Formats: sequence, C-alpha cells, structure tokens
Amino acid sequence: MNEETKINRTIWQKDDQQTVQIIDQRRLPHELVVADLATVDDVIRAIEEMYVRGAPLIGVTAAFGVYLAVVNTPPDATPEGYLQQECRRIRNARPTAVNLAWAVDRMAAAVQSIDSAAERTARAQQEAVAIAEEEVENCRLIGENGMQLIADISRKKKGRVVNILTHCNAGWLACVKHGTATAPIYAAHDSGFDVHVWVDETRPLNQGARLTAWELGRHGVPHTVIVDNTGGHLMQHGQVDMVIVGTDRTTYTGDVANKIGTYLKALAANDNGVPFYVALPSSTFDWTLPDGVRDIPIEMRHPDEVRTVQGWDDKAGRTVLVPPANSPVANYAFDVTPARLVSGFITERGICGATEEEIRKLFPEMA
Amino acid sequence: MNEETKINRTIWQKDDQQTVQIIDQRRLPHELVVADLATVDDVIRAIEEMYVRGAPLIGVTAAFGVYLAVVNTPPDATPEGYLQQECRRIRNARPTAVNLAWAVDRMAAAVQSIDSAAERTARAQQEAVAIAEEEVENCRLIGENGMQLIADISRKKKGRVVNILTHCNAGWLACVKHGTATAPIYAAHDSGFDVHVWVDETRPLNQGARLTAWELGRHGVPHTVIVDNTGGHLMQHGQVDMVIVGTDRTTYTGDVANKIGTYLKALAANDNGVPFYVALPSSTFDWTLPDGVRDIPIEMRHPDEVRTVQGWDDKAGRTVLVPPANSPVANYAFDVTPARLVSGFITERGICGATEEEIRKLFPEMA
Repeated sequence: MNEETKINRTIWQKDDQQTVQIIDQRRLPHELVVADLATVDDVIRAIEEMYVRGAPLIGVTAAFGVYLAVVNTPPDATPEGYLQQECRRIRNARPTAVNLAWAVDRMAAAVQSIDSAAERTARAQQEAVAIAEEEVENCRLIGENGMQLIADISRKKKGRVVNILTHCNAGWLACVKHGTATAPIYAAHDSGFDVHVWVDETRPLNQGARLTAWELGRHGVPHTVIVDNTGGHLMQHGQVDMVIVGTDRTTYTGDVANKIGTYLKALAANDNGVPFYVALPSSTFDWTLPDGVRDIPIEMRHPDEVRTVQGWDDKAGRTVLVPPANSPVANYAFDVTPARLVSGFITERGICGATEEEIRKLFPEMA
Repeated sequence: MNEETKINRTIWQKDDQQTVQIIDQRRLPHELVVADLATVDDVIRAIEEMYVRGAPLIGVTAAFGVYLAVVNTPPDATPEGYLQQECRRIRNARPTAVNLAWAVDRMAAAVQSIDSAAERTARAQQEAVAIAEEEVENCRLIGENGMQLIADISRKKKGRVVNILTHCNAGWLACVKHGTATAPIYAAHDSGFDVHVWVDETRPLNQGARLTAWELGRHGVPHTVIVDNTGGHLMQHGQVDMVIVGTDRTTYTGDVANKIGTYLKALAANDNGVPFYVALPSSTFDWTLPDGVRDIPIEMRHPDEVRTVQGWDDKAGRTVLVPPANSPVANYAFDVTPARLVSGFITERGICGATEEEIRKLFPEMA
C-alpha cells in the first residue's frame, strides 16, 4: 500500500507531534498533495485559502490550530495572553463556518486554567484529538442510521441498484472521515448493497465533480458526474431513488441552508415523489432561528469563482475565463430549502422528520 | 463604425453572391470571428462542428447550403441528381434540429422543377433569403408581443427595474436577428423600459455565459451572469419578475423541450409565483406528440462536454478537465417542462396559455 492509498482522513498528526498534516484540497482530483501545518499562520492560511473546507473539517483544523498555538508559545510570552490573541486570529480566518468559533472556544476553555506548559500542551492535544474523534464517530453513526433508508429502498427494488443523487461535497473531505451525506452511501456499499451515485458537479467551485467524484471513485462506489441542470430530468424518468445532501446550517424548524442549487433539487424531488434527506451532526442545528429563508444570511463570494473554472490541462492546473470579461457576475454561495420539501434528517442519534416537533423529540435537551 | 460593431445578424451573403458569411460562435465571447461558407462542405462543417447552433439558425444555414449546392453544380452533373445528393448530405449534418430538414425540403421544392441554371440559382437565392427574412420577422413579432408582458410588470412596479431570468441562448445568435426569448427583452430595452437580465451560465456548453451575456452586453442591456444553481434563491427573494426561455420543441399540449435545467427553473418559478414564459415561432410546435415528458426523445451528447470546460486563458482559447479523468459522466442535452408549469407562450401571432385549447385557438389551421 503506497502513501496515497493509506490516506483515509483529511487531517492527522505527524509522528513528531508538532506538525499537523492535511490534504491540500485545492489540488484535487488531479493531484493528491499533503501539506504540513506547523504554526498558527499555516493553519489560518489553510482555512482562508481553502486547502481545507467543509464546516466540520474547518472546526477540527481550527482545534489543531489552537494546539499549535500552545506548542509554539514563545518562552517570553504570557501563555494566557498569547493564547487569547492566537485564538482570535484563528476565529477570524473565515466568517461563516459555525464550527470554527465553536472549536476554538472549546479548545481555549480546556487549556486556559492550566499553569504547567507541558500539561497545557498535553491537554490541548487531547482536546483537539477528542474533537476530531467525536466528528468521526458522529459521521459513522450518521452512516449507520442512513444506511437503513438505503436498505429499505433496496428491499423494495428487490436488490436492484439504488440510485442516489447528491449535491456538492458532504463527503469525508468535508469532515475527518466518512462524511455526512456520503456516510450512508459508504456504509451501504461496504455492506454489499448495490448503490450508484449521481454526482452534481456543483458550480461554481465544482466540489461535486472535483471532490465527491474523487472520493467515490477511490472507494470503488459506482457514480456518474452530471451538470447541476440534470437532476430534474433524471427524477422525471425514475432514475433517482433518493437524494441525500449535507447542510451548513439547519434551523430547529427544519429549513436547510446548503450549497446553492440544493433548493432546486429539493423542488424536483418533491415534484417527482423522490425522498429528499439531509445528513447532519446535531451541531449543525441552529436553535435560535425560526425561518431559514428569511433569517439565514447567504454569503456572497468573489465573482471570479463564477467567471472562471479551474481545471487541468495536460500537465498543469489552469484557470480559464468563460463569460465576457466585462459582464457583471453574482456569486451566491448558499440557498435555503424550506422544511416542507425535506423528507427527513439523518443525524447521529437517528432519523427524524423536518418539523420542529420531530427535531425536538430527537434532541429533548434543546427544548 | 468598425466591421465588428456592424454585425447584427448571424448569417448574410457576401457581395460576390457566391459566399455566405457566418459568425463562428465557437470563438465567442472572446473572439468575434467571421467564417466564409463557399461550398456545401463548408456548410456541413459549420453545422456539425457548431460554428452555428440554435434550431432557427441551423435551418437558415441549411437553406443557404442548398443555394450553394445550386451555385456550385458541376457542368457535367445532372442538376436534379446533384441537388438531391447534396440535400441529403446537408440534412444529415445534425440529427435533431427540426428546422434543418424543413428548410432543406422547402429549398429543394422551390428549385427542382426549374431547368435553366441561371433561373435555378436566382430562385434558390430568393428562397433562402425568404426563409431568413421570415425568421427575422417572426422574431420581431415575438419581441413586440412579449414586450407587452414586460410593460405590464413595469407598470405594476411603477417603472422600477424588471428582472428577467433566462436560460441558455435563445438570442439572435440562435436565430438570424432579435432572437426568441431575447426579442421581448431587446424590444423593451429599446423602448425605454428598465430591464435587467439574470443570465444562467448553462452548463455544460455555457451558451448563457458565453453567448447570451455577450449579446446583451453588446446591446447595452444590463445583465448579471449566474451559475445555473442560483435562480431558485433569487426567486425566493423577489429578485426575478419573470422567466423567458426558448424551446427546441413544444408539444401541442404545451410541454416544452429546452436546454437541460429549464425544468428546474420552471419548478422554482411555480413555487414562488413567478411567471414562466416560453418564446417560440410557430414552427417549433410539434403537432403530433401529446406527452412531452414521455414522447420527446432527449439527445445524449458526448461526455467530454461535461468533463471539460472551454474558456480563455490570457491569450488563447483553452479546454480544462474538471472531474477525475476516469469518473463516468452523463450528458443529457435537454429536459421537458410539463405544461402545468408554463404561464404562456409568446409567438409571432400573439400570446397564449399552455393548454391544447389555447394553442389551437391561436393556430386554428392546425386543428
């Protein structure tokens, strides 16, 4: 087994315990490049410049960033002041991922009352690893729970292939391992169910074509890449048995913010009686907002992401311009799918319907 | 006025009357290249390799192809046999565009009973020009009729900007002049209405980003390019007042075949109470098929159109690969929007609802 095929996590510690390693996802699928993160600056660059992306992975990377801040505290610095300053810098690396601030705060709370430098380091490492392992375990459970839905369809189809459509990348590359939307797919495939995945390319950044297709191909899961325009046609013709997507934020009322275009697929699923599921760890629920379409702020990103496409030209990565250079462009990163279009949520605790009542029943401590 | 800015048709005759000129649309928007068509081989290459595209323009190009066959009939050939052979070759250039066979047949019928070579040539030229001019006039009338819908919205909004979303290119580049979906937009803009167009980029071939954006920018019509995933979000937030698209074939019951992804926009329009109109010359109605989703065959095109993106890299056109080279890809070119999602049809005769009854009322001779 060579180095490449051994990699099955998005982030891990090097044996020296002083360096964190990640996959530089900007280079996928055409190159699998591992990057070393040895300092807080490295971590901030990796988050800002999207070597890593996906809310869960951003959180875990930030946690290891706080660990590196503790490791690298200068001998002449006040440990507490230095920690606070570095945590602030990491928290500001990207504005929208909820998991980033959450992970940084949890790390800071874990170490801030410890005086001994050696103990601080040990505690920081332990907490970062714990955050990563909880992420892995949540995704594993999402996989087990979601696999039951695939098994049910497989039984109804008497073992014939179950066709699943997904949008964007909610795979292990967005998490640490397993993924959210992909976890049930991997679990079903590994258990011998015949599954096939329609992979939306997911413009503008093509996370589906670049990342999800790469993940699935590497794992041996049958899949077909399609442009984002295609899902409705496939559903009209009985070629999609279910949709599973991830989410960046879901209200306690069941409205789902996810990559732009998710709403269009939910409409098509609803119009054709295709079940539409959202896979998420409970940390992605927002317990404060009642109306997702009205209340969830939608990030506008740089127009060049729409204007250009990054790809591969024989030997090198290359970026090409598509529309006229002077045409105005708008780049909305997310949309919100109303709860009425969602068949259910696949969480680490189990599956529930997309209503406040059903969500609260699964998470009674939030009531 | 330089050569470039003078061009306002997609196809025209050179002064020598022996050469037809077209815009090589493969090079847009980054280069405006005019190509000479002097032989039937030139015409076939232009249609096959998509120098020209769009059903109406393919038809007109084919008509001029038959004219060139007449002009270039070898002195030793039987004119009738030669004409039949060349017509057959032109008709086979592309399989799906209805207008191609229709235009070739009309040309052949016009010249086949004429003996004098000079008269045949004159008659062929006259008929090709007539087909082109009818195309222009139909599009002009579609523009006048459709403009009334925009004017109504403008009045309701007390003159505030009317936001129109369109998918693919049903502009003058798909026709000879004016376009179908764009004709009402140009007419409204030229009449002083404040319009703004959301331009879907339209993967896989990006006819929206490449062609529609170029057309609108050149005409001074305010517009914004968006990825195909975006329309639903815009409609949820009141940023789209109407949708206008073209069509490749529409059943007499009102089902609309158009570029893949049109159905998803129609669903979003319906979900948000946004009027969804289809602009078409009456020749695009199919009077034989009752059920579009079931009956209209959907062309599967080469997977490389999905796998790669053509764009511009500083000084040259370039094609880049996006997904893993070994990931399977599917390329459905069209989808069908059921009549229940269509607000109405904008034709050269006027506007009608998307029911068999209303369509037949506008075209009683087809009853």
